[in-house]
Amino acid sequence: MATRRKLVIDCDPGNDDAMSILMALSDVNIDVIAITCVAGNCDVTQASLNALRVLQVAKKLDIPVYTGCDAPLLGERKPGSPYHGVDGLGDVPDPGAPGIDRIQIEHGVQALLQLSKEHAGELQLVSIGPLTNVAMAIRLDSAFGSRLKSCHIMGGNYQGRGNITMAAEFNFYADPEAAFVVLGQLCCPMTVMPWETCLEHAISWETHTNTRSHDTEKARFIKSVDEWSVNYVKPKNAPNFVPADEACMACFLSDDVIKSSVHVYATVETKGHYTSGQMVVDWRKRDVNDPLYKKPNVTIVTGLHQSLYEQLMDRALSC
Amino acid sequence: MATRRKLVIDCDPGNDDAMSILMALSDVNIDVIAITCVAGNCDVTQASLNALRVLQVAKKLDIPVYTGCDAPLLGERKPGSPYHGVDGLGDVPDPGAPGIDRIQIEHGVQALLQLSKEHAGELQLVSIGPLTNVAMAIRLDSAFGSRLKSCHIMGGNYQGRGNITMAAEFNFYADPEAAFVVLGQLCCPMTVMPWETCLEHAISWETHTNTRSHDTEKARFIKSVDEWSVNYVKPKNAPNFVPADEACMACFLSDDVIKSSVHVYATVETKGHYTSGQMVVDWRKRDVNDPLYKKPNVTIVTGLHQSLYEQLMDRALSC
Amino acid sequence: MATRRKLVIDCDPGNDDAMSILMALSDVNIDVIAITCVAGNCDVTQASLNALRVLQVAKKLDIPVYTGCDAPLLGERKPGSPYHGVDGLGDVPDPGAPGIDRIQIEHGVQALLQLSKEHAGELQLVSIGPLTNVAMAIRLDSAFGSRLKSCHIMGGNYQGRGNITMAAEFNFYADPEAAFVVLGQLCCPMTVMPWETCLEHAISWETHTNTRSHDTEKARFIKSVDEWSVNYVKPKNAPNFVPADEACMACFLSDDVIKSSVHVYATVETKGHYTSGQMVVDWRKRDVNDPLYKKPNVTIVTGLHQSLYEQLMDRALSC
Amino acid sequence: MATRRKLVIDCDPGNDDAMSILMALSDVNIDVIAITCVAGNCDVTQASLNALRVLQVAKKLDIPVYTGCDAPLLGERKPGSPYHGVDGLGDVPDPGAPGIDRIQIEHGVQALLQLSKEHAGELQLVSIGPLTNVAMAIRLDSAFGSRLKSCHIMGGNYQGRGNITMAAEFNFYADPEAAFVVLGQLCCPMTVMPWETCLEHAISWETHTNTRSHDTEKARFIKSVDEWSVNYVKPKNAPNFVPADEACMACFLSDDVIKSSVHVYATVETKGHYTSGQMVVDWRKRDVNDPLYKKPNVTIVTGLHQSLYEQLMDRALSC
Ligand SMILES: [Ca+2]
Ligand SMILES: [Ca+2]
Ligand SMILES: [Ca+2]
Ligand SMILES: [Ca+2]
Repeated sequence: MATRRKLVIDCDPGNDDAMSILMALSDVNIDVIAITCVAGNCDVTQASLNALRVLQVAKKLDIPVYTGCDAPLLGERKPGSPYHGVDGLGDVPDPGAPGIDRIQIEHGVQALLQLSKEHAGELQLVSIGPLTNVAMAIRLDSAFGSRLKSCHIMGGNYQGRGNITMAAEFNFYADPEAAFVVLGQLCCPMTVMPWETCLEHAISWETHTNTRSHDTEKARFIKSVDEWSVNYVKPKNAPNFVPADEACMACFLSDDVIKSSVHVYATVETKGHYTSGQMVVDWRKRDVNDPLYKKPNVTIVTGLHQSLYEQLMDRALSC
Repeated sequence: MATRRKLVIDCDPGNDDAMSILMALSDVNIDVIAITCVAGNCDVTQASLNALRVLQVAKKLDIPVYTGCDAPLLGERKPGSPYHGVDGLGDVPDPGAPGIDRIQIEHGVQALLQLSKEHAGELQLVSIGPLTNVAMAIRLDSAFGSRLKSCHIMGGNYQGRGNITMAAEFNFYADPEAAFVVLGQLCCPMTVMPWETCLEHAISWETHTNTRSHDTEKARFIKSVDEWSVNYVKPKNAPNFVPADEACMACFLSDDVIKSSVHVYATVETKGHYTSGQMVVDWRKRDVNDPLYKKPNVTIVTGLHQSLYEQLMDRALSC
Repeated sequence: MATRRKLVIDCDPGNDDAMSILMALSDVNIDVIAITCVAGNCDVTQASLNALRVLQVAKKLDIPVYTGCDAPLLGERKPGSPYHGVDGLGDVPDPGAPGIDRIQIEHGVQALLQLSKEHAGELQLVSIGPLTNVAMAIRLDSAFGSRLKSCHIMGGNYQGRGNITMAAEFNFYADPEAAFVVLGQLCCPMTVMPWETCLEHAISWETHTNTRSHDTEKARFIKSVDEWSVNYVKPKNAPNFVPADEACMACFLSDDVIKSSVHVYATVETKGHYTSGQMVVDWRKRDVNDPLYKKPNVTIVTGLHQSLYEQLMDRALSC
Repeated sequence: MATRRKLVIDCDPGNDDAMSILMALSDVNIDVIAITCVAGNCDVTQASLNALRVLQVAKKLDIPVYTGCDAPLLGERKPGSPYHGVDGLGDVPDPGAPGIDRIQIEHGVQALLQLSKEHAGELQLVSIGPLTNVAMAIRLDSAFGSRLKSCHIMGGNYQGRGNITMAAEFNFYADPEAAFVVLGQLCCPMTVMPWETCLEHAISWETHTNTRSHDTEKARFIKSVDEWSVNYVKPKNAPNFVPADEACMACFLSDDVIKSSVHVYATVETKGHYTSGQMVVDWRKRDVNDPLYKKPNVTIVTGLHQSLYEQLMDRALSC
């Protein structure tokens, strides 16, 4: 077990965050060292309580949960999507949920910095919420990224296709300045799961149902919290179900999930009227000596091996 | 001949504009009523002289050429691409070229307005330069577009892929405000040929050479003005040649060229730091009654029938 | 009379435009050659009809009124201020007003260009509405300004003090891009009357009443159209009445009105979130050889001789 | 001594920061609890070393100096002004200066948070550099400001007058996003010393010389570090010397210095092309019930009692 991979999940649960956490927990090679939460799908305290609920379902309440930033870098929370309900987990009553006292006292950003020192060179980060905590860690310590082994990010887009606005994906839209800071300044290997790839790798309603039909507490939990979302999109004749954070986590769990990717320079628009929060990719092929040359800083995943991807989701709920 | 289609070409020749003009002239069903010029690949007077050179080669100097705007709406010309040489036509000496006195005295924008009245409901516009003249026509007369039968536009992008900047295509970059005005306010059927589709439908160097090898004056002319561009891109190991305006003109000449397209709402970013001039497309499927619903205003061409496309280019130089 | 100054008034009447027109008409040394109208306080057709009403009151219906642009450069009219009523002239019924047939057929921008040629070097422009028409004239003919003797502009601010937004004055806010174009590209002597100077030179309610109490048709007209505004601001305990366009016209009528001014470089912000439409002044003293040196392009009026100013307003209604 | 006022100085020394620190140290009623440094006039490590040099001159090396953020919120340091030399203190060799080991290990932002808890309700902050550290403290703990008694800020402008750009003052320009966060979200009494007030209260060269002529180590130190600035501005015929941070510190030391001020709503432009970093003030008088009403959040100092101000500077170097 000495070689288990050390993971911190930075998230805003969120149903797809919940599923992603369970995916990580179902992999015996992964050591989830901590969960840090951030405002996004819901407020940050609720996000932390939601993370605890997921850990309780997985019987992993020993994993510490930290509360990070309660607002984006510039401080103004934008209205979220109604997709995950008010509480981020489909507004399902849970009287036995862990209380606020189970949240760590230390701030999530401090935890990120501290853990990056304790596990320097080994720590891997999967960020599946707005990037506020990660940007704050960089700003407090510009060497933060140099101590990470890698960072996987669910967020942004590579063909200008938005979900929350015309041009922006939710996580980058929620904190464009943080996304700008992280892409430009984290300085560790970064893998980005953009919105278009999530869309391309939607799952059928049949697969969705099957995955949630295992006779396990986890499956029952996910099924119940998903009910809100399902009822939200099904009447709109959604032809399938689009996981997002799960696709990012799957790529972290196994490189084999990645069917295609591009290694490019990308940044984030923070000033646009229509495009604030959009990822901007430099597709222009230039010689390294060209003054306009931009060194690639991210690997953008453009295609997945669907069956392996779906297996990783299924495994998460199967035991 | 009473049924020939009435065309005005708004352009900034430009090699690919020259080729596009010849494509239109080679179609017996098209009546090219006028050419209006705009600053873009070169200054607007040079562009007008270049248009005259093309007409001379085609023995069509009876078609009037008008000089339009000498700068974008906000007045600040941006440095162009070196791709077409300083004079826009590969800097090939042409002692016999028509002089400045052959340019019409009337302003190009006035000509657009006047012709739209003379041929109300019949006039079709192909715009293959920055959209300044078209935007100015709208601003002087908001009913301008209602008198056009259609407008085909080379410009913009639909997947955030730029050529002159990371995120913007040259024509929209050169006058983002004009592109914003035209897409939002022209109010006639608009077909947009975006940069990505041009890239997807590059032609092989062999096809390029063959097309320019006809024993005609037109072929010799295009071959000579193209030499600069070819020498510019070949040493960069360009795997093929990318026509742009030609793709737009081909779609105008024959709907059959269009293999695939989308009918969507699109606008243009004018405020972004990285994305100024980028086209922004609303891909979100919404019900007509949704307050965020955006009525489709453009048809974006996403795929071409390559062989028909290449035939139309070949025909232009073959006689 | 051969030496009468030749004036075109570009305006969006508007009570203060109406008063300003009467001020110009009351000066025997001024030849008001034309009035061009623009969308601003009301739509442009209404503005033209309003100008005609003013001319009728002054028995000067021989002066031609032209309709200019019906929307700002980028095409999106912003909600105006309720300050002048819906029709711009206090919503006072006027059954005998001149009809739409009295408006010239030629477009206001064409008229500006034409008149600048007819009276090259002599024509003076007073612009007291959004600068759309003037910017359009520049864009159609970059030599337009070089044929003007001068241009007086009511608009903008020089200390960041707004009226319609926190940071912008109404005329520049209504078309920031036009204001940007005019300040940067008109290239004739420009005198700007900024909002702060208007505020500094408000008139007492007593003066307001006295000026409107002459036993003349003009005084009765202005009094009636002002009633709406007075009833709008008086309940807010406005300590005085703030003329705006009138201050600009007064400076045009007599240089002696100008008590203080600065000759500086100024431009207009078009991208800001809070500051769109704000005038931006370069106060930094630099040597002409400094690369950051900006050549002064406007004279900003910072103080007025109040009594002369008030006399010019009074004269306008006294006969 | 139980009632000494508890002060933290957040700064980027900087000659005027150095002088301001000495002004605070010369007041027996002030307990300077800590100095936190930020990147601005120079990099943050240099700023910390500079703070230590000042403390050494004042024989106050017991006051802890903390290093804060090494770049603005968005991470991109802008070129500074050459006004203070490369090292921020006039590039005067100082072989006996305290070394890097004298800087506290704890991060400046953590120190701000910690001290605000230790001295909740009593701590006063004087911020005379870019506002990065303060904004970071807010983002890590939104209750930070509620524990401060007050915050005095040197930065911004209230009439759109810039020093480093046309429209922005250096500290706000250096980190516009931080200034935006602090003005909008610090939620404690804030007093802003804007650039225009500094300009209005320049001191004569005679006063400048006299103040620096005391036979004290402090006077000799300030005189030597000022030499670079003096030699920079004197050849430009600067009519006087403009202290900036000193004016802010003076207002903190004694309310009596403040001759006039306004209590208004102000924010900071972060998107403008010309106006990024400009302070934006709402001067519009509105009723509290008006939907556009903006609650005042800052007191902007508009005038000083010059003699008291100069006395406070003189006292700092006199013993
Ligand atoms: Ca998430
Ligand atoms: Ca072209
Ligand atoms: Ca007006
Ligand atoms: Ca400072």
